[in-house]
Amino acid sequence: MFGNGNNHKLKIFAGRANQPLALKIAEALGQPLGRIAISDFPDFETSVRIDEDVRGRDVFLVQPTCTPVNQHLMELLVMMDAFKRASPARITAVLPYYGYARQDRKDKGRVPISAKLVANLITRAGADRVLALDLHAAQIQGFFDIPVDHLFAVKELARHVRSLNVPQDELVVLSPDVGSNKKAYDFQKNVGGKFAVVDKRRTGASEVKQGHVIGAALEGKTVVIYDDMISTAGTVTGAAKMAREFGAKGVYVCATHGVFVGEAIPRLKAAAVDQIVVTDSIPLTPDKQLPNLKVISVATLIANAVQRIHGNESISALFTEDGPGDRK
Amino acid sequence: MFGNGNNHKLKIFAGRANQPLALKIAEALGQPLGRIAISDFPDFETSVRIDEDVRGRDVFLVQPTCTPVNQHLMELLVMMDAFKRASPARITAVLPYYGYARQDRKDKGRVPISAKLVANLITRAGADRVLALDLHAAQIQGFFDIPVDHLFAVKELARHVRSLNVPQDELVVLSPDVGSNKKAYDFQKNVGGKFAVVDKRRTGASEVKQGHVIGAALEGKTVVIYDDMISTAGTVTGAAKMAREFGAKGVYVCATHGVFVGEAIPRLKAAAVDQIVVTDSIPLTPDKQLPNLKVISVATLIANAVQRIHGNESISALFTEDGPGDRK
Amino acid sequence: MFGNGNNHKLKIFAGRANQPLALKIAEALGQPLGRIAISDFPDFETSVRIDEDVRGRDVFLVQPTCTPVNQHLMELLVMMDAFKRASPARITAVLPYYGYARQDRKDKGRVPISAKLVANLITRAGADRVLALDLHAAQIQGFFDIPVDHLFAVKELARHVRSLNVPQDELVVLSPDVGSNKKAYDFQKNVGGKFAVVDKRRTGASEVKQGHVIGAALEGKTVVIYDDMISTAGTVTGAAKMAREFGAKGVYVCATHGVFVGEAIPRLKAAAVDQIVVTDSIPLTPDKQLPNLKVISVATLIANAVQRIHGNESISALFTEDGPGDRK
Amino acid sequence: MFGNGNNHKLKIFAGRANQPLALKIAEALGQPLGRIAISDFPDFETSVRIDEDVRGRDVFLVQPTCTPVNQHLMELLVMMDAFKRASPARITAVLPYYGYARQDRKDKGRVPISAKLVANLITRAGADRVLALDLHAAQIQGFFDIPVDHLFAVKELARHVRSLNVPQDELVVLSPDVGSNKKAYDFQKNVGGKFAVVDKRRTGASEVKQGHVIGAALEGKTVVIYDDMISTAGTVTGAAKMAREFGAKGVYVCATHGVFVGEAIPRLKAAAVDQIVVTDSIPLTPDKQLPNLKVISVATLIANAVQRIHGNESISALFTEDGPGDRK
Amino acid sequence: MFGNGNNHKLKIFAGRANQPLALKIAEALGQPLGRIAISDFPDFETSVRIDEDVRGRDVFLVQPTCTPVNQHLMELLVMMDAFKRASPARITAVLPYYGYARQDRKDKGRVPISAKLVANLITRAGADRVLALDLHAAQIQGFFDIPVDHLFAVKELARHVRSLNVPQDELVVLSPDVGSNKKAYDFQKNVGGKFAVVDKRRTGASEVKQGHVIGAALEGKTVVIYDDMISTAGTVTGAAKMAREFGAKGVYVCATHGVFVGEAIPRLKAAAVDQIVVTDSIPLTPDKQLPNLKVISVATLIANAVQRIHGNESISALFTEDGPGDRK
Amino acid sequence: MFGNGNNHKLKIFAGRANQPLALKIAEALGQPLGRIAISDFPDFETSVRIDEDVRGRDVFLVQPTCTPVNQHLMELLVMMDAFKRASPARITAVLPYYGYARQDRKDKGRVPISAKLVANLITRAGADRVLALDLHAAQIQGFFDIPVDHLFAVKELARHVRSLNVPQDELVVLSPDVGSNKKAYDFQKNVGGKFAVVDKRRTGASEVKQGHVIGAALEGKTVVIYDDMISTAGTVTGAAKMAREFGAKGVYVCATHGVFVGEAIPRLKAAAVDQIVVTDSIPLTPDKQLPNLKVISVATLIANAVQRIHGNESISALFTEDGPGDRK
Repeated sequence: MFGNGNNHKLKIFAGRANQPLALKIAEALGQPLGRIAISDFPDFETSVRIDEDVRGRDVFLVQPTCTPVNQHLMELLVMMDAFKRASPARITAVLPYYGYARQDRKDKGRVPISAKLVANLITRAGADRVLALDLHAAQIQGFFDIPVDHLFAVKELARHVRSLNVPQDELVVLSPDVGSNKKAYDFQKNVGGKFAVVDKRRTGASEVKQGHVIGAALEGKTVVIYDDMISTAGTVTGAAKMAREFGAKGVYVCATHGVFVGEAIPRLKAAAVDQIVVTDSIPLTPDKQLPNLKVISVATLIANAVQRIHGNESISALFTEDGPGDRK
Repeated sequence: MFGNGNNHKLKIFAGRANQPLALKIAEALGQPLGRIAISDFPDFETSVRIDEDVRGRDVFLVQPTCTPVNQHLMELLVMMDAFKRASPARITAVLPYYGYARQDRKDKGRVPISAKLVANLITRAGADRVLALDLHAAQIQGFFDIPVDHLFAVKELARHVRSLNVPQDELVVLSPDVGSNKKAYDFQKNVGGKFAVVDKRRTGASEVKQGHVIGAALEGKTVVIYDDMISTAGTVTGAAKMAREFGAKGVYVCATHGVFVGEAIPRLKAAAVDQIVVTDSIPLTPDKQLPNLKVISVATLIANAVQRIHGNESISALFTEDGPGDRK
Repeated sequence: MFGNGNNHKLKIFAGRANQPLALKIAEALGQPLGRIAISDFPDFETSVRIDEDVRGRDVFLVQPTCTPVNQHLMELLVMMDAFKRASPARITAVLPYYGYARQDRKDKGRVPISAKLVANLITRAGADRVLALDLHAAQIQGFFDIPVDHLFAVKELARHVRSLNVPQDELVVLSPDVGSNKKAYDFQKNVGGKFAVVDKRRTGASEVKQGHVIGAALEGKTVVIYDDMISTAGTVTGAAKMAREFGAKGVYVCATHGVFVGEAIPRLKAAAVDQIVVTDSIPLTPDKQLPNLKVISVATLIANAVQRIHGNESISALFTEDGPGDRK
Repeated sequence: MFGNGNNHKLKIFAGRANQPLALKIAEALGQPLGRIAISDFPDFETSVRIDEDVRGRDVFLVQPTCTPVNQHLMELLVMMDAFKRASPARITAVLPYYGYARQDRKDKGRVPISAKLVANLITRAGADRVLALDLHAAQIQGFFDIPVDHLFAVKELARHVRSLNVPQDELVVLSPDVGSNKKAYDFQKNVGGKFAVVDKRRTGASEVKQGHVIGAALEGKTVVIYDDMISTAGTVTGAAKMAREFGAKGVYVCATHGVFVGEAIPRLKAAAVDQIVVTDSIPLTPDKQLPNLKVISVATLIANAVQRIHGNESISALFTEDGPGDRK
Repeated sequence: MFGNGNNHKLKIFAGRANQPLALKIAEALGQPLGRIAISDFPDFETSVRIDEDVRGRDVFLVQPTCTPVNQHLMELLVMMDAFKRASPARITAVLPYYGYARQDRKDKGRVPISAKLVANLITRAGADRVLALDLHAAQIQGFFDIPVDHLFAVKELARHVRSLNVPQDELVVLSPDVGSNKKAYDFQKNVGGKFAVVDKRRTGASEVKQGHVIGAALEGKTVVIYDDMISTAGTVTGAAKMAREFGAKGVYVCATHGVFVGEAIPRLKAAAVDQIVVTDSIPLTPDKQLPNLKVISVATLIANAVQRIHGNESISALFTEDGPGDRK
Repeated sequence: MFGNGNNHKLKIFAGRANQPLALKIAEALGQPLGRIAISDFPDFETSVRIDEDVRGRDVFLVQPTCTPVNQHLMELLVMMDAFKRASPARITAVLPYYGYARQDRKDKGRVPISAKLVANLITRAGADRVLALDLHAAQIQGFFDIPVDHLFAVKELARHVRSLNVPQDELVVLSPDVGSNKKAYDFQKNVGGKFAVVDKRRTGASEVKQGHVIGAALEGKTVVIYDDMISTAGTVTGAAKMAREFGAKGVYVCATHGVFVGEAIPRLKAAAVDQIVVTDSIPLTPDKQLPNLKVISVATLIANAVQRIHGNESISALFTEDGPGDRK
């Protein structure tokens, strides 16, 4: 708004949640990560000191609030307090993964809506905008009164699948769960092939819950299971097992967020899956490595969005959610 | 908080959106509707004058924001401004129908999240709490920072269906659309019988979109189609047609909100449906009458909730959403 | 603040309340109206989609909240929610007519102050500033904490009256009501001639209310009745009748806002008035046409103000209210 | 809300602006003023210490923000900060005189709306409600989003005038200025007699500004000049002079607020006025004494309002402004 | 405010930070801890479900934000969101230890004021009031706009020291650091004896920093070192060493908060200290046990304060900080 | 953000609290003070009218809130309201002296935290940032959620002391009070010499409070007493007396803020002090003149900071508080 030739320059900083991704984003932007010292005091309070001038700059803070979410979220908030008091022109919280996204409504009495709480905390700590990737529920945008740009990794993941050169008539995209249908269907529109869905609903109260596959036949096909996140991996490995039972000759698992907690790694190791494809929205630490894990970077996607936000260019032009709306 | 023996007494008022329902709620509470004069100035600005003292009272305002939604919403907001300045102890907006609920996320770039806007406006105008019925998306609760009590008419509708005495092995609950599965499934748990769903997804990009029925067979059954609202009735009449084609011997349509706009009435008149069952959350004006329309009142349900809110008793104990959560 | 060469460019958009005025303003600014799709869903919820990029732009939304006020106000609020989420640099609500302006205080117990409510709603929905024209009460500026620029059409209307070439000693400006004196007096300062006022006060409790004309004699004069708005036209047609009775040879009626509701059109048709002069702050639809209606456009006035706000130039330099202050 | 038998008891405290009035209000309420130590530090910062427990109490702070207004307003705000942190159930700011009320709009460019600023400051410092007396502009109620109770001293002043036993056909109420007409007219409705108004408007641009008296003839009458406040007394002494010139045999001046600044006392001493009647909303210090000054107390009026607010009883039932509304 | 006989009853709940203390507080209040299920999801998001009705209740949440502070603070915030949506009459955050308290100002450029951030987050999440114990800086009260009650454990600790029956002329209270003087001096006023302070300031730029003891001689005395918290124990063990060097015959260390991080336990084990006295504001887990550790409970102190807050009785009457003020 | 070539230009305005300083700051910035008319109405309400266009400008308002603080603070707030409504790009409140700074915590029950109240009022009135000088407590920065730049006059004062050419081994900096140690110590680091402190603590409850000097010996030295402010001068004249008693051959008193109230001037006149050195943060009116008073201007310091804020350059780079932090 004011000042000299250095003003409003883009600066990108990162917390400790996903340094490798932040470095790649910075590299894609052609500039180093901003200097900031983040450490723990002996009592594990978070210590932050920004080591370069940020007055009037356009600051982006990369910090997915992945496991351990409370630690990474508080680190983000403490960083934002430091930035807010250092007079940048604008602070954008870049959240490649949005922790607590699944707590987006009261599914019973007297529980929190933690995804809303997180939105309130981020806003209160000083964010001017948010850049998010594949939010678990699109309504989370409405939890904010500040602008939210919502990116989708579907094109990046689809590009990898297409590079596998599976013939279109051999490819089936499989949604592992009714709740993931819409996302899987959007994915299928990007890779082609046919579509199927695992349905575990009971057809009557007295019947045992069992799985069906609805839609395209899997016999002799290459099946790509798609979901927005892999958490404990129970759902996708269940779907993979079912695909094999129905005669699939190849099985791939594709997801934006590789959360990989609880029994996820053992389950995936044991599963008859050709390849597991996730993005680097969450860092894949050594304990999360798998021989057949393929990681697709979202660094360029996010860097492009950062560049466009900084340059006041349309995000929706490029990355828009292909939403059909639901007016009937 | 203060004052004499009249304090904190419950008072119930109504806007003009659904006077019949408000009168029934008041009757169920054993008291008359509060006196308030609402009219239009010659230029159609809304004129409001509360005609009795409300200081220190516990005020409930019944106003579904149904069609014409802008008129009914503004009437609610003007009423709330009058109440806020008249010093009640608390104002609860009772919204049997929440207009703009379907605009709950940005499904494309540069559109509003009107359901969030409405939440912001209601809060800004002075509501202390909200009492809502069958919100289109449960996440709308998270659009508010004030407490929201969320009721469900499923038990009231189920009671009517059970009164039809259809044998359990002849009953099928049919979800007319994938997006309505969860609600239809909750309904089925209350009425019994089997479950099926209309699926209109394409199984491949080049194929024509066509309907399937997944789950229980409909041949010779009594089919109850369930949704949260009937707007233009295209979806439910499509499902009814399909049910008949698949051999259903009886077809019922059940929904909480009878919005009935556009081609709804002609479509429903033309449909081969035995009975259409909705609640009185929205007034069923003469132009919305159908010979086979059955209206179930939610007045007692709402009155009980009002009484419990006033008495600081648990709502969730009685009416809780039966939410399985979606952690995998 | 940021970005490329397109940044901070002025963009002007319009709701559906007064498209002709908006088009003229855009024309005066030398640019087209911004593309925005506004329509009604079948249930009459307002649908808005901005059809061009507005990131970092300086957005002006033209929407007088004229009859039907609730519809036009909600349309404005929904539009603003869409804009707010689309990341413009600034949103200015351009309100050539401010609905509910007459509800600016509690003149009795338990009524709303709707003009304040409207200010709160516009602010909550995301306006950064307001540009208004001839507010009914100047105090409404104080209802906002965001900046309000307040324009006056008095010069535009005076220019027309001067073009009638009435000799100064034949011209009398007549205030039709005590409450309108200040505005009429400001008008008289712009057109010259003499000044008179209709006084309908009773001079004693037992006396019948009757009209007097105070000030200049009307006999043989050309009388210009001036008010800020013509609503049901009872006041100005009463004044016109009185002017004729007192011997006026010509009678003109002048006002900024042609609200024209209720009996306005029949009354004005029946009145012995040479010409009725209003601005196009409110669209003069076919049902509001009169053979002797003269419409003066405020498009250039508003376009100049928009250009000055955009260019950070003083508004008060040009259009300032000529306020004497009231310290005694 | 909580607690023991002492809860929610009414407590009344006073700043230093008008201790005599506060003592009378407390007396009328049958309880002593709450103990609070207010003094100046050597550098004239205000020192406040509340000397009794106020947790859960219903606190009323009496402090007219009269001359020196900045001192009395800041004292009110500092007191409120102390109270807010001491956990009362509610704080009501009792403002028998509202300083800065005449700065209620921007009558030219680049000036403050100080009356709104004051409303914002009082709210920010922690007031839950406001009790005001004869606000200079009724729109000031709309400057607050917290509830405002607005009292009028007209009945108290009228009672005194009626006690003078002037025959109805000898009594004329005179408004000293066009801007005061409405208030003077309300007064006349309470005392009877006839009504007149001083009009100092020029009837043409070239003419000298001079006074007229419109309405009832003053010859041989007892004239009661009425205004809401007497500041420098120029207006009312001008009206008194004119009344004498027009042959009035008795002249009284009546106003709620005796501000009495600048040349007020010398002017009033020199004026041919039988009696000056004001209330004790502002303390009448020795330098403001006049031999023919009659002070009517508003202590009982305010005490009744305090008692009714505390007891959640209607204020408007008793003291409502007799507003005709201004819809035409 | 409303409701039945159960209303406004006090309910006390606890997070997982210090269950033993919470249980003791509940016991002192004569009621069980409220039922609430707190656990971790597999990805370590915090899961909260309140298992009893809290509508209209007066809720106290006990949760010191001790190490790991980010975990305990987020747990508090998630709990508060759940409570806020469950409609209690009031929520008081009971913080026996306030994490981040030492980050209370910017001691250099571009750092956070984390203690203020924490205040903002707690307020945003829904706290109505705060009850804190021995805040590191008294100014933290001013970081809140909601009421803060500030307790001091000095009397509890002094009672223990007096029970040691050290003759007054043998007792010396030693402040281990200039910054702790005021607190140590307040302690000395409660236990008697003499006063001394360790001073590690350099007396010239070129001189080595070395310790002095100012005040009472330590030779042959029983020295009680007092501070508000023991974090890494470097300061207090340094003071203990110095006391021994100066001939103290007995050395005690006294502090409210036993943070005990980093090298604290080894240092204290190695130190020539007779007894280390802390309160149970922070849980003393097995890894923090020392043979000569004496723990004084603050449960009764806090329970009394909770009871008084609930009962709207004065806290300051009992526990007030003995502040001399600092006006010179 | 918008507009033409005049945009975002720096403009500096001043209230009436310290015109001489404001003029010097403007001179140092190479531009005149902005034109603004500030006066008192007859009733001492503050009248403000900005006499030049400020749209889109970067406005700095110089107004120390020194004695009479309530008057100067309200004048600042009224000015800010006028500016806020005149649409500058940014308003920075420049507070060379922050009144009420010593009321920064509740040192007993039921008192205000006036320093926080002042922060709230300044923010509410419309400040976007604050520029302060030598705040009495650094925590006051945390009372604001808007950015605060905190300057220190230590270098300016040190430069003067060094110009006295006292040999390093003859120079002793003396802190007059334990509470001022840190500030005095920072000063000593800038001027060199040795360090000492006056300690008036009692060493036992029964002993008389008496002064000691701790640290460097004063015999034959030139002693510079340093504090942040001189209010009634009791503390510094006491320290001066003690220095003389201990044999100091020269005594200087140095402070940023020359408050000089109560007995300050007589005390300083009577004291055996060679020179009293203060800055012009507070105007030194004729009644505050002393023959041995040396005034060091902070105009250049503040002008540099203003220039850097305007130019978005780092303040901390130049003027940072040399804070050691207090983690132990």
